[in-house]
Amino acid sequence: MNYALINKMSVRPGKRDEVIEILLKSGAAFDDNPHCLLYLVSKDKQDENVIWIQDVWTDEPSHEIAMKNETMQQYIKQAMPLLTGMPEQIAVDSAGGKSPWN
Amino acid sequence: MNYALINKMSVRPGKRDEVIEILLKSGAAFDDNPHCLLYLVSKDKQDENVIWIQDVWTDEPSHEIAMKNETMQQYIKQAMPLLTGMPEQIAVDSAGGKSPWN
Repeated sequence: MNYALINKMSVRPGKRDEVIEILLKSGAAFDDNPHCLLYLVSKDKQDENVIWIQDVWTDEPSHEIAMKNETMQQYIKQAMPLLTGMPEQIAVDSAGGKSPWN
Repeated sequence: MNYALINKMSVRPGKRDEVIEILLKSGAAFDDNPHCLLYLVSKDKQDENVIWIQDVWTDEPSHEIAMKNETMQQYIKQAMPLLTGMPEQIAVDSAGGKSPWN
């Protein structure tokens, strides 16, 4: 069963582009990771201080390993002061639908 | 630019599986629609009365057309009484990341 996550990240005013840059740089490591099926970074259209990150991984341990990577941890440290709090992490169980990996 | 949506749907107690069934049946129409890149229906792990629907379409008009389809409208009418209110629709602009269609 795939492991999916929806993350809502609230940033300090004016810091969204900076945080997105960090998210994209850190996420470049997923490009060659076959366990990462989806990593979408998006800007909320209604709230200019909100970022949404949608992840789908083949399994939960693969996501954990990717997060524990030292370079990733450095990116996280870089982003944290730009946020207004901890990202809101919504864990979900896939019920079906259409996706390129099914 | 792709058109992406994150939808949060709150259902009446005990009605989640029924609503998911409707969402999957109605979404089967997207399987052969090349404008629908992603349609993920998921159960919130923390709240047993919440469903998340993640959509990515090639463009906004294609999504609108798919929603206006008569069969789709019938499914929507079928699902509405099972919800506690209107779905919360979060429109987002993609900023990048990893996806099979990029």
